Amino acid sequence: MAKELTSRSENYSQWYQDLVIKADLAENSAVRGCMVIKPYGYAIWEKMQAELDRMFKETGHVNAYFPLFIPKSFFSKEADHVEGFAKECAVVTHYRLKNDEVNGGVVVDPDAKLEEELIIRPTSETIIWNTYRNWIQSHRDLPLLINQWANVVRWEMRTRLFLRTTEFLWQEGHTAHATKQEAVEETIKMINVYSDFAQNYMAMPVIKGVKSENERFAGAIETYTIEALMQDGKALQSGTSHFLGQNFAKAFDVKFANKEGREEYVWATSWGASTRLMGALVMAHSDDHGLVLPPRLAPIQVVIVPVYKNMEQLENIRNKVDGIVAGLKAKGISVKFDDNDNKKPGWKFAEYELKGVPVRLAIGPRDLENNTVELARRDTLEKNTVSFDGITDHIQSLLEEIQTNIFNKALNFRSENTLKADTWDEFKDLIKNKGGFVLAHWDGTSETEEKIKNETKATIRCIPLDNEQEAGNCIYSGAPSNQRVLFALAY
Amino acid sequence: MAKELTSRSENYSQWYQDLVIKADLAENSAVRGCMVIKPYGYAIWEKMQAELDRMFKETGHVNAYFPLFIPKSFFSKEADHVEGFAKECAVVTHYRLKNDEVNGGVVVDPDAKLEEELIIRPTSETIIWNTYRNWIQSHRDLPLLINQWANVVRWEMRTRLFLRTTEFLWQEGHTAHATKQEAVEETIKMINVYSDFAQNYMAMPVIKGVKSENERFAGAIETYTIEALMQDGKALQSGTSHFLGQNFAKAFDVKFANKEGREEYVWATSWGASTRLMGALVMAHSDDHGLVLPPRLAPIQVVIVPVYKNMEQLENIRNKVDGIVAGLKAKGISVKFDDNDNKKPGWKFAEYELKGVPVRLAIGPRDLENNTVELARRDTLEKNTVSFDGITDHIQSLLEEIQTNIFNKALNFRSENTLKADTWDEFKDLIKNKGGFVLAHWDGTSETEEKIKNETKATIRCIPLDNEQEAGNCIYSGAPSNQRVLFALAY
Repeated sequence: MAKELTSRSENYSQWYQDLVIKADLAENSAVRGCMVIKPYGYAIWEKMQAELDRMFKETGHVNAYFPLFIPKSFFSKEADHVEGFAKECAVVTHYRLKNDEVNGGVVVDPDAKLEEELIIRPTSETIIWNTYRNWIQSHRDLPLLINQWANVVRWEMRTRLFLRTTEFLWQEGHTAHATKQEAVEETIKMINVYSDFAQNYMAMPVIKGVKSENERFAGAIETYTIEALMQDGKALQSGTSHFLGQNFAKAFDVKFANKEGREEYVWATSWGASTRLMGALVMAHSDDHGLVLPPRLAPIQVVIVPVYKNMEQLENIRNKVDGIVAGLKAKGISVKFDDNDNKKPGWKFAEYELKGVPVRLAIGPRDLENNTVELARRDTLEKNTVSFDGITDHIQSLLEEIQTNIFNKALNFRSENTLKADTWDEFKDLIKNKGGFVLAHWDGTSETEEKIKNETKATIRCIPLDNEQEAGNCIYSGAPSNQRVLFALAY
Repeated sequence: MAKELTSRSENYSQWYQDLVIKADLAENSAVRGCMVIKPYGYAIWEKMQAELDRMFKETGHVNAYFPLFIPKSFFSKEADHVEGFAKECAVVTHYRLKNDEVNGGVVVDPDAKLEEELIIRPTSETIIWNTYRNWIQSHRDLPLLINQWANVVRWEMRTRLFLRTTEFLWQEGHTAHATKQEAVEETIKMINVYSDFAQNYMAMPVIKGVKSENERFAGAIETYTIEALMQDGKALQSGTSHFLGQNFAKAFDVKFANKEGREEYVWATSWGASTRLMGALVMAHSDDHGLVLPPRLAPIQVVIVPVYKNMEQLENIRNKVDGIVAGLKAKGISVKFDDNDNKKPGWKFAEYELKGVPVRLAIGPRDLENNTVELARRDTLEKNTVSFDGITDHIQSLLEEIQTNIFNKALNFRSENTLKADTWDEFKDLIKNKGGFVLAHWDGTSETEEKIKNETKATIRCIPLDNEQEAGNCIYSGAPSNQRVLFALAY
């Protein structure tokens, strides 16, 4: 291959980094911790956005846009939130530069200091609930079902492309409800949307559950999460939905008159998913040859590579291919005919493998004679010679098959890597030597969770929804427990 | 009406402000100069985005994402650019807050001062060209045709919703080319895309032209613009496309090996349109009753209001309406059946007039008997009773008619308000007492342009493309001139 990747077995972390860069998904920028999302990576993100946005709208949500800046004082209003979010963040203190008369260039104008510093939003609960105060008076103003697509900034010390960056792109839903029950239902509805998206579009099986108190969102009463397992046996939190109770309503004094005319505080949820999903997508499916993209999120679903010795052969191939291209497009399948004369077919094969294009067709003069085409599947790397007749129907069903196959492969991997531990030694051994999801009894206390984390780095990823009830004893403290929870090392 | 607007004749500026707020497009936020774009306003912006994005992709562009932050030193690299952009901007100086042990709340941690301040992008030429240096080595890497949808910040002292806000949303295209000719062609191609969008989607006639040197983008060799005329006779710049020459390539050392293997600097363009277009849309068409939206950008194209006395009547209407709704949706027409029982029909009529919904149907029990429906057009405020038979076809062609009518109305207004001035007194009189576009001879010097601006506040909006050549004398200096240029007061 033109662009060599480190293999997963050699160094998984380096493999990931190599792949993200060499497949043109993203790269580090001149600004520490901030990435550039390159056109190919952004095209995948756009597909994710389009599907999520459609799902949000189908569940009754609308989009809006709130300011990038949050006044510093807003963070102090919700006690837990300030602890969780107001610390490592970008602070705007001045609003003007001026020419540096001495050294040239520009310097910050000390006369242009803001009275109150502005924080670049790390998440928008505070500014949004401050706004909702004016939008909500009566139960007739509820529910508010609003989503925002935006950039956010959290000042991270150690960053990795997509997985943890100082600036990232995401969506954040912020809803307001008249009753606790309705808010809880919304929280669950949205974790289900994320789960559907992860499984049906990203082809990535996820476990739905609730977070332990330690891992909850700062300011939430309950945090729902979807957790996926990466190929190195580490978990990746892929979307969260928070029931915020009346915490933000109280912090920002958001009340409504109920049907009886009595004033009550509003109930809140928030939910988000980010460009971190790009990292999950890469790590869930890809191999040592490059990306493996599920067809539903692949910017190019089918690539056609002509194999020719002269321009006449290329023209003959082009004439044959035109019909296939038109037929695939008519079915809504994205297809690229790569007739770039500067690259050899072998280079192109490697390049599209690296880029994760699900189906590759190669056509040469012999194929024209035989009315055939060589078809390669990215997921299995299988090659077959198939007839031109009915090729578009064949590709259409093959793309569905690939989508399912990628999901099943990931599901099998997860099944094989989800084990039960019944003793502390067993638990430590699994976490240290095998990785994966470990189901174990836990006494329900933050103290035990903290100690397990300190000794093994494993965290409780979630308490699965619809969890099997089973009597047992905490692996660490031995105290009685009525269910296993999901532990893992995590990104 | 429930929500009274100031009339345009009474106070145009107040009318605009009232309308933006009362039609739920946007409002001021808690952060000075930053707006909240409300769901209804954002839905219009999403329609604009979708059409522009499609047009960009059809002309070969792809999207990507570059960092929000720009190192301060980058601005000093292009001499004109720093003068134009690096001054009034948001400066991040710190990356951490800490608890205020004395007063409570949080304060900026003085230990977390950045070595080099970061500027929130006011536009992204500098960070993008710094990135392109690594992406471009050979002529085979060119052209790069990249667009970004993003938020930007320019610290404005006087702000107005959509028209001038500290933070705004926009797209910025940044392309790189091997030849000057190709870059110039790209610049013109994109001003044509903006012009097509403005005229065919916003129903807003625009004049295409180039800016005078004074009004050029900071760092550009040539700036192309589209200029629209608002109902108060002021011009609004609605999109610009810049030929940047090799200025940014030289500032960021971006070279490529040409086909002969010689190194050359890359040629650049950039082009942008922003949420300012929302302001243009409002001011170009709306009236004292509220918004008038062109059907192609209206989030709701048809609203159906039932007029009933009891639930049985409502059910009968609903049964009849179901077919219309399905029929309209099948044609891709967005329709809302407003059966909210808390509001009276009269309130709804006023509300949808305010919101600019192009077509309103009202249906009562008498209509059911007669197989008719009352149809109201927002653009003309005409009401007609029409038959149910063929109603969806009728509405489909009516929406096209409304789109055309709104454009023609704006075009007539512009024609009536585009006048020639041949003397300085005539010019001053037109600008002061009539407004509108004024075509006048100019001697081509920045000095004269500056003096005209100082005395009348009028600026040269553009030198129209394909301008008629005509001998004359500068209205101010009397020096000879071979063409008229377009003057106006402007937003």
